[in-house]
Amino acid sequence: MNAPTARLPVAVLGATGAVGQRFIQLLENHPWFKVVALTGSDRALGQKYGEGCRWILPGPIPAGVFDLPILPTLPPVGGVSLVFSALPSKIAHEAEAEYAPLGIAVFSNASAYRQETDVPLLLPEVNPDHSTLVHLQRRKRGWSGLIATNPNCTITGLTITLKPLLENFGVRRAFIVSMQAVSGAGYPGVPSMDILGNVVPYIADEEDKMEWEPLKMLGALQDGQIIPAPINISAHANRVPILEGHMLCLSVELAQKANLEEVAQALVGYQAPEISRQLPSTPPAIIRLSQQADRPQPRLDVMSGNGMTTVVGRLRPDPLLHYKMVILSHNTIRGAAGGSIYNAELLLKQGLVG
Amino acid sequence: MNAPTARLPVAVLGATGAVGQRFIQLLENHPWFKVVALTGSDRALGQKYGEGCRWILPGPIPAGVFDLPILPTLPPVGGVSLVFSALPSKIAHEAEAEYAPLGIAVFSNASAYRQETDVPLLLPEVNPDHSTLVHLQRRKRGWSGLIATNPNCTITGLTITLKPLLENFGVRRAFIVSMQAVSGAGYPGVPSMDILGNVVPYIADEEDKMEWEPLKMLGALQDGQIIPAPINISAHANRVPILEGHMLCLSVELAQKANLEEVAQALVGYQAPEISRQLPSTPPAIIRLSQQADRPQPRLDVMSGNGMTTVVGRLRPDPLLHYKMVILSHNTIRGAAGGSIYNAELLLKQGLVG
Amino acid sequence: MNAPTARLPVAVLGATGAVGQRFIQLLENHPWFKVVALTGSDRALGQKYGEGCRWILPGPIPAGVFDLPILPTLPPVGGVSLVFSALPSKIAHEAEAEYAPLGIAVFSNASAYRQETDVPLLLPEVNPDHSTLVHLQRRKRGWSGLIATNPNCTITGLTITLKPLLENFGVRRAFIVSMQAVSGAGYPGVPSMDILGNVVPYIADEEDKMEWEPLKMLGALQDGQIIPAPINISAHANRVPILEGHMLCLSVELAQKANLEEVAQALVGYQAPEISRQLPSTPPAIIRLSQQADRPQPRLDVMSGNGMTTVVGRLRPDPLLHYKMVILSHNTIRGAAGGSIYNAELLLKQGLVG
Amino acid sequence: MNAPTARLPVAVLGATGAVGQRFIQLLENHPWFKVVALTGSDRALGQKYGEGCRWILPGPIPAGVFDLPILPTLPPVGGVSLVFSALPSKIAHEAEAEYAPLGIAVFSNASAYRQETDVPLLLPEVNPDHSTLVHLQRRKRGWSGLIATNPNCTITGLTITLKPLLENFGVRRAFIVSMQAVSGAGYPGVPSMDILGNVVPYIADEEDKMEWEPLKMLGALQDGQIIPAPINISAHANRVPILEGHMLCLSVELAQKANLEEVAQALVGYQAPEISRQLPSTPPAIIRLSQQADRPQPRLDVMSGNGMTTVVGRLRPDPLLHYKMVILSHNTIRGAAGGSIYNAELLLKQGLVG
Repeated sequence: MNAPTARLPVAVLGATGAVGQRFIQLLENHPWFKVVALTGSDRALGQKYGEGCRWILPGPIPAGVFDLPILPTLPPVGGVSLVFSALPSKIAHEAEAEYAPLGIAVFSNASAYRQETDVPLLLPEVNPDHSTLVHLQRRKRGWSGLIATNPNCTITGLTITLKPLLENFGVRRAFIVSMQAVSGAGYPGVPSMDILGNVVPYIADEEDKMEWEPLKMLGALQDGQIIPAPINISAHANRVPILEGHMLCLSVELAQKANLEEVAQALVGYQAPEISRQLPSTPPAIIRLSQQADRPQPRLDVMSGNGMTTVVGRLRPDPLLHYKMVILSHNTIRGAAGGSIYNAELLLKQGLVG
Repeated sequence: MNAPTARLPVAVLGATGAVGQRFIQLLENHPWFKVVALTGSDRALGQKYGEGCRWILPGPIPAGVFDLPILPTLPPVGGVSLVFSALPSKIAHEAEAEYAPLGIAVFSNASAYRQETDVPLLLPEVNPDHSTLVHLQRRKRGWSGLIATNPNCTITGLTITLKPLLENFGVRRAFIVSMQAVSGAGYPGVPSMDILGNVVPYIADEEDKMEWEPLKMLGALQDGQIIPAPINISAHANRVPILEGHMLCLSVELAQKANLEEVAQALVGYQAPEISRQLPSTPPAIIRLSQQADRPQPRLDVMSGNGMTTVVGRLRPDPLLHYKMVILSHNTIRGAAGGSIYNAELLLKQGLVG
Repeated sequence: MNAPTARLPVAVLGATGAVGQRFIQLLENHPWFKVVALTGSDRALGQKYGEGCRWILPGPIPAGVFDLPILPTLPPVGGVSLVFSALPSKIAHEAEAEYAPLGIAVFSNASAYRQETDVPLLLPEVNPDHSTLVHLQRRKRGWSGLIATNPNCTITGLTITLKPLLENFGVRRAFIVSMQAVSGAGYPGVPSMDILGNVVPYIADEEDKMEWEPLKMLGALQDGQIIPAPINISAHANRVPILEGHMLCLSVELAQKANLEEVAQALVGYQAPEISRQLPSTPPAIIRLSQQADRPQPRLDVMSGNGMTTVVGRLRPDPLLHYKMVILSHNTIRGAAGGSIYNAELLLKQGLVG
Repeated sequence: MNAPTARLPVAVLGATGAVGQRFIQLLENHPWFKVVALTGSDRALGQKYGEGCRWILPGPIPAGVFDLPILPTLPPVGGVSLVFSALPSKIAHEAEAEYAPLGIAVFSNASAYRQETDVPLLLPEVNPDHSTLVHLQRRKRGWSGLIATNPNCTITGLTITLKPLLENFGVRRAFIVSMQAVSGAGYPGVPSMDILGNVVPYIADEEDKMEWEPLKMLGALQDGQIIPAPINISAHANRVPILEGHMLCLSVELAQKANLEEVAQALVGYQAPEISRQLPSTPPAIIRLSQQADRPQPRLDVMSGNGMTTVVGRLRPDPLLHYKMVILSHNTIRGAAGGSIYNAELLLKQGLVG
């Protein structure tokens, strides 16, 4: 498929929340999609979005959605055939399943369906072929629409970084410690009294996702099924007092020997699979490898590639496994709304929606 | 030896810096030591301490030192036989070596002599027997005084945590990621523009110390020499926007199997060696094991045991090694000035000084 | 009355919130009061305090209250005759009125009754005589108990500072701008996404209280009624990313001329009225006047006098009014729980309760 | 004069500092100016800018300057006829005076010459006519070049806000309290230990500038001399833990009565003088008046108009003077480098340089 000739009308579910607002912002001038409807929290129902939404992003609410009414989260929503879901996971499970049978493609940021064997968990730079799971999904569930998910914000950058290592050298084990921004917990999210001048070494349910989701995405598709990648991951999750950007310290053991230069080259030279290279959200570089001793840093690097590039730095030998490095990814852009939009572009390109 | 009958006169070298001020503060009402002289930065020489020192700790400058003149960092300093050194490492190497030959015991927070085979690197809770290295030191260097050092603030809590694990189960490998407070870099130290709302995944020379110093302290003393403990450590160091308290995420592989309860029991039940149990700086608990899911946290836990207790939390299985946990230690108290004072108490008790 | 011979049993209403926890902490070793009962949020009812309360203060939950059951906020609560109320203002209005008729003295941190003409709004250092309003209150409402309130945390330090100026020189106008800590908004209170690296120049309803409450407290008691002080105040309220301590910039116009030295002397020399000087919560100094150019600062000065002293600094001429200065007060100690306890001590001393 | 047909070659003095980097960044794609030379700190002399400069802004060092050598701060610098000076004030006084006699126009961010009666202190939106002071300056000093300055970052937004009030209603008195970002102090500037979780109610020399500079800029030009505006200003300066954006609380007394609507209209409707309206740095709106109760906020509003728009909010009556409001301005863009560039555009347009 080529780029659509007109902007496809879409809706955003949960548009008043933190990730919902990112969807609205990133879609403002999107060449393929146009937000024509949106849903939001109960207490704001019926109000204009521009008035009922407590906008927490820099810059004004996009003019194009200011007057849209905040609808309840039930289909149909504006008669669209594609929705982005920023719903809380608890609500998402039921709500998204009401859309998919109606011929609507749901691109979901929620964790509700990520573990389902017939639901693709997608990073276009990593596993665009996994989108074909939707055939299985439709057959099995009798849906004319679909649900496609993007992974947890914390391991998005990790999975993108592991992909070229896996392809080139194989990956056996990975030790990861995250330092995550407060925006990852939504709004109001983390109370300021908990995090000002503090670190909280715990995020509910996060470590399980960190240890599992990469395996699905890095897994091979065989006979319409995903065989999880045989990588052993250990994860520690921490919340730190920063606003945007999830950092990860990674130590990794490769399956075959590689010197530092080869590893650096594999990272720098990584390109997305052909199908994902020219999409509107494709960043100039999938991975940027910083040579400076003290980078990446959230304040300086989080907006690399408009928040879609994964920045890797401090690549160096590890005395325990093979290599150490630091990974930074924008949690509400590449790790949430931007990633979900990227997925929708991919499936449109693949002819699976639209 | 018993407790001294009168407070021993001591001096603080580098008393105007961040760690120097902690020495001054912690020694204010110390039962064994009394600060009678101090040295400081060149631009303040000759001024009264209370006027020439830019005091950066909460509360007033202790009255007992307010009027002391700021002296140059050259012996003799007040005719004392015991000094605490908060000198920058570059200066410490030369300066401390001018004190030791004069019969003066130098308790140094600097890294300058930590790697010397004849200089004890001491944590009284861990390796009080290593203090006997001073015999070798005196013989070899012809000193009548001595230099004894305390370790890098970042791995103080780690080494204390590894000690009971080593004793009970053996330790093979440890993976550690630090999240360190800005006070660890002294004053003025980290520029605010670098760290406000940011994380810096790099601290110069820190990781080398983190991977090496614990091995010396956990090593065995044989024939007057230390055989480093055969533990393999991989360290990542990060600076985070908090004021006090270094946090560590640790994954550890034990030499022999132990269940969670046994590990918890080893940590909670750990007691300092007999000689170190009743010193003025001995905390009520060497290690406190938190049962709460999201602890330790710097804001809530850093002052445990007046900043001398190591707080461990989130003890849980690790899918890669054996156990994961989080460690918190006060970097300028237990990890710096408080630790150095504790060492001096130990050597006094052991009859090696005084 | 003299000090009580035994600790008076008291209860804390709303003990699970941020101010409630401060009450619990400050009362732990209080010489006159002992917490024997407490109430808390609905979702924790019936649990032990130590288990149902999400404790957000440094240090452990006091052992003496750990096992107390969390009761509903309805009298009787443990059969006590004195309660401290940390209830939200909405609930406080109704709830506190259920206690007072039962012979119970309610010391309330809520704003619900502050404006009532028969309810004392008290700072023992400032207007201990206003406590006699309780006679009017009892007569008018038929209560055998009473309600006494402490003022908004933000203007506590201001009112204490204005008092000696008013006494010595008269005060005509005051211009104040606050920079307030997040703890002033309770827990969870201010979302971290709103305040990390940010300033919010607005706090709902705060400026009205700031412009009015000082007038009542600085007013004269005539024929059992308070004549508000004729001071004209303009207030701007701001929230800043600090944890504890409300700062105020003040420019003040005096009624009669005074030179800088006289103003400084009035502040430094200020003593509480006789009746308030020897209470358990009386700080060593009511006001501390800092001479350093860049003080007070929350991090360094907020705990002055155990959080009960008001710290004033940067006293200097004002080109528009007469003098400029900066005021710091601990918002959850002097400005909330500590102030309410101080009030209870006062009324006990005055024989109005107990 | 019309827009230049080719980009004018310019140099940046002090290009390695915080404001110097902003100059470099803002000039990267400037339509009228092109950086061809730069000077920097002694320790980096001779190195390539891209290697010798510790770049502290988000995003990479502009490619066009990466290879430029860091020159000493002495003319000639690349043979340019226009330089932007981000020199520290101490150095600026002497250094800038070495450029001006050589026919070079110096646009200086330093305070060194702001108070000179023959040196324009310029905000193109406010007093573009003051640029004619350069005629006096050239006559008096015998210079073929010139020095033109932009004001202190803190009162830039204030002066822009006062201008329409002055024009429409007259202004008698203004009370201002600032809450300033750490970037205003340059790099390394404010130590993190001083400002993390803290407020510092003092900035050296700042209040004098705040009380004086607006009077010069709002003054009238008569017979080639500036008569300072007869406004009485009282200023309190505070440093708060935010990165970018200076906030001001303002209470203002007008010379003639005006209702809220009229004041709002004067602010919203304000346009720059004709000559300044179409310059490359002219923002879409000089002033944006926010209607939301809790705005402006640095995080959300500081980049309004690419950091060149002044955002005013919370306009409301003041019980002491006439109106209260909050003002936000980007301190390193509108208040420093961006303002200086805007000035150069103005003088080019006026035919005074180029």
